[in-house]
Amino acid sequence: MQNSHKGILIVISGFSGSGKGTVIHELMKNPRYALSISATTRKPRVGEEEGVHYFFKSKQEFQSMIEHKELLEWAIFCDNYYGTPRQYVEEQLFNGKDVILEIEVQGALQIKEIFPECVLVFLTPPSFDILRQRLEQRKTENASIIEKRLYRAKEELEFMYDYDYIVINDILSETIINVKNIIQAEHCKTARNQIFIEKLKGE
Amino acid sequence: MQNSHKGILIVISGFSGSGKGTVIHELMKNPRYALSISATTRKPRVGEEEGVHYFFKSKQEFQSMIEHKELLEWAIFCDNYYGTPRQYVEEQLFNGKDVILEIEVQGALQIKEIFPECVLVFLTPPSFDILRQRLEQRKTENASIIEKRLYRAKEELEFMYDYDYIVINDILSETIINVKNIIQAEHCKTARNQIFIEKLKGE
Repeated sequence: MQNSHKGILIVISGFSGSGKGTVIHELMKNPRYALSISATTRKPRVGEEEGVHYFFKSKQEFQSMIEHKELLEWAIFCDNYYGTPRQYVEEQLFNGKDVILEIEVQGALQIKEIFPECVLVFLTPPSFDILRQRLEQRKTENASIIEKRLYRAKEELEFMYDYDYIVINDILSETIINVKNIIQAEHCKTARNQIFIEKLKGE
Repeated sequence: MQNSHKGILIVISGFSGSGKGTVIHELMKNPRYALSISATTRKPRVGEEEGVHYFFKSKQEFQSMIEHKELLEWAIFCDNYYGTPRQYVEEQLFNGKDVILEIEVQGALQIKEIFPECVLVFLTPPSFDILRQRLEQRKTENASIIEKRLYRAKEELEFMYDYDYIVINDILSETIINVKNIIQAEHCKTARNQIFIEKLKGE
């Protein structure tokens, strides 16, 4: 018998260059995890499917979701709305899936407020020197963009204490294990096993 | 790079028959864990070694340890004092060992008060029926002792909410993994990584 069958919402943030994308891609190989799907008002690009890549919404639909508190967080980028529909997350959790949600710090803190039982995980490289090296090795960004990303990382650093866990992404395989361990350990948290305790008390 | 190199104190409690002993025996095969050693005023039995099985103390020495707050918890059983010396635990933690301490609920709660950074893990069988079966299968206790143990378990149940984690000991190998995951996840807790965060901030 496993502890706490209901899924857990795991919110992952991290500096640009921390390796979030790779970590989440690896986690998704395990069918017990589901990826949260965002809603957006931006038009679908070629190959993007409704309910797979995004839930595509009109501005009116999106605003109605905001009004009816159907989003765990939302924000506007380049005139488009983006947000996390609560219903999809809750359906997955109810089906016993642990839901992984990648988002920047402001969004993560919004979610924690609305959904306090979620777990906030911050992914970080071992040092800023290594972060700089990783950004330089990508060879997709010029020097000025790298400086901007490092500056942004310094800002995000201030929010690390709001996270539940800090995972230092040095060796990818160890990072994946650490994130999986965190999720598994969270299933054993007493607060997530109230039904089991009450069942024992009733015996 | 691993998160938080300092060890963590893991306090394990559980009903009589929950399989604590076996779980701890299995954990001890990993050299990264150290077992806490109790101090006692009882006389050493044949084969018991000072600093291995117990720290043997006179009543006067033990009372002095109480006065000088050198114990994380203590109690009296059958006219003998038993307690957990703080110094030994802290030495092991400083050396990066995770310290495992098996104790009943009152002792565990004493320790949490004095040493709030410890982690309380409660080990439980999946149900009271299974607990009864396990106690009966031991064939070392008669029916009246089994009833007493079950009654005691019902009392201990009231303290489960004071624990950080509940591990349901159904399949031993899974239980061991769950306890190890909890310890590993605890090393990633933000509160245990302040030095790392402050180092990043200083870069």
